[in-house]
Amino acid sequence: MGVEVIKWREGTLSIVDQTTVDAVVEAIRQLRVRGAPAIGVCAAYGILVGIRENGSADSAAVIQAVEQTAARLAATRPTAVNLFWALDRMRAVTARAEAAAMSKEALYRALEAEAAAIDQENVALCEAIGRTGAPLVTENAGVLTHCNAGALATAGAGTALAPLFRASEEGRRFTVYADETRPLLQGARLTAWELVQAGVEVVVICDNMAAQVMREGKIDLAIVGADRIAANGDTANKIGTYGVAVLARAHDIPFYVAAPYSTFDPKVATGDDIPIELRPAEEVSQGFGPRTAPALAAIYNPAFDVTPARLITGFITEKGIIAPPFREGIAALRETGPND
Amino acid sequence: MGVEVIKWREGTLSIVDQTTVDAVVEAIRQLRVRGAPAIGVCAAYGILVGIRENGSADSAAVIQAVEQTAARLAATRPTAVNLFWALDRMRAVTARAEAAAMSKEALYRALEAEAAAIDQENVALCEAIGRTGAPLVTENAGVLTHCNAGALATAGAGTALAPLFRASEEGRRFTVYADETRPLLQGARLTAWELVQAGVEVVVICDNMAAQVMREGKIDLAIVGADRIAANGDTANKIGTYGVAVLARAHDIPFYVAAPYSTFDPKVATGDDIPIELRPAEEVSQGFGPRTAPALAAIYNPAFDVTPARLITGFITEKGIIAPPFREGIAALRETGPND
Repeated sequence: MGVEVIKWREGTLSIVDQTTVDAVVEAIRQLRVRGAPAIGVCAAYGILVGIRENGSADSAAVIQAVEQTAARLAATRPTAVNLFWALDRMRAVTARAEAAAMSKEALYRALEAEAAAIDQENVALCEAIGRTGAPLVTENAGVLTHCNAGALATAGAGTALAPLFRASEEGRRFTVYADETRPLLQGARLTAWELVQAGVEVVVICDNMAAQVMREGKIDLAIVGADRIAANGDTANKIGTYGVAVLARAHDIPFYVAAPYSTFDPKVATGDDIPIELRPAEEVSQGFGPRTAPALAAIYNPAFDVTPARLITGFITEKGIIAPPFREGIAALRETGPND
Repeated sequence: MGVEVIKWREGTLSIVDQTTVDAVVEAIRQLRVRGAPAIGVCAAYGILVGIRENGSADSAAVIQAVEQTAARLAATRPTAVNLFWALDRMRAVTARAEAAAMSKEALYRALEAEAAAIDQENVALCEAIGRTGAPLVTENAGVLTHCNAGALATAGAGTALAPLFRASEEGRRFTVYADETRPLLQGARLTAWELVQAGVEVVVICDNMAAQVMREGKIDLAIVGADRIAANGDTANKIGTYGVAVLARAHDIPFYVAAPYSTFDPKVATGDDIPIELRPAEEVSQGFGPRTAPALAAIYNPAFDVTPARLITGFITEKGIIAPPFREGIAALRETGPND
């Protein structure tokens, strides 16, 4: 199911074969690695790349390399919380190592193990999200999704797509409407591709057709992923998600957000406190090669938007569906962690 | 102001220099001529092209050529009513000519005059729509528009854009947010270009960003054009318009439709009776040259949607703004015609 996009084998991180921190930073910034969970996994492995690159003569040098690499990786993209969450986990390893006066070799092995744990945990979280969400995807359902929250975004089976893969494995037939998701067309290019590979019927639509397919009665539920979820349930996700949520509400269509505990950020009270990344104008004006907007026109290109909690029917998580009011359910999910 | 896109000079219709009915049909079908009013003007001139192409030995032959050409032009695009309205006007000339036993030359001159009248009337209608709508565009306003309803769509100053051109001429400064309007990007390519030419500040956004710019408080009103308006006010326009209307309502933003009397279709009771053109999948999957969706994914590409009257704040027409309830105002507009 899906495609493994991030690999750490024999001390080398391969995505598009990233061997330097510069290359990892660039891969995240240029969206060659994208999707909140995948960025987290990539950042964890990126720490290992930083240590190797640095030569790191002793434990202190390893710890310094971790700090420096983490700072550089943290500066790549502001919105997706999994990035910071993964870096925090790696830094926690060095903090424990310092306390235990660990050898350089032991520390490196501990960091390698933590990155692998984050990676494997992600895979397991995706599978669990799939099990939680699959019952929502009934026979002959029409499901709308936006952007790509599949294997190509998560180092696993996906978040939003996991319930679809699972429902398909369970033998149900249904149709997925994939918003193409301008400017970078992750829906048309990635989601549609993943679903075709999995044998799921997929219909690609332009983003501005979502309202019409809802009006035509083609959509029974919407499932999207998330880049960061505030303590109250406000959800940052790919630009356009908020619009889909408003449209879903206007058509009485349930709107679900699929995400693991690591995407919930208890430090952020509401969506107002989630930083929204603005991306280069050229993604919009020259997204396909030739210029499609006049040079003298301004471009506004926010990469994400925030969907207020009131528009969200529920969160599909590894522990089950969190229904409104969300605050308690979200707090409980964060407290228990992945293994409880 | 703007650009003249349809010309009839010395017996030749030039758009991209159309000299045969085949070429006119193809120009409309391939959207080289697009926008409801422009298609109407082009069809009127297209009738003249049909007569010349036919050789048309006598009045009866001219009338036959009009019928045959009208039938071919009517089959090009089903949604925009101005096409059928213009053809009806041209056919009404032949009906009168038949009754009056007009000579071949007199009939041709009468048809030529009618086509020119439709053209000039469109120019005047656009100007009047501009005068009606300009007061809505106040200093520092943020205005959202979708697709292109400017000079490139109307053989005049435009419908949705006319109030913007006029407000700018009156010295006000404001910002227009232009939805790029997938799949064919008429907003990014045409609307943005026209506004830049007119010195109006324009910001191009992807369609899926409209909700976010509304949420950020950047939009004070939305103005769009129309391809056909039913007797009850339900409005067919470029795909995505319905979504903009739902979003505008959710953000308490006034949503206006700008259109001349010829876009209102009294024969159609509600939007349910307006045929919606489905266009080729390739517009979505290969709109920019390279393929952006997998070959095995289906594509849904409706060219228009219908915005229910309840989401429309008012119609900006050549005779003033029609406010709800719309039925009476629409009936009155159609009855008086352009010159009363």
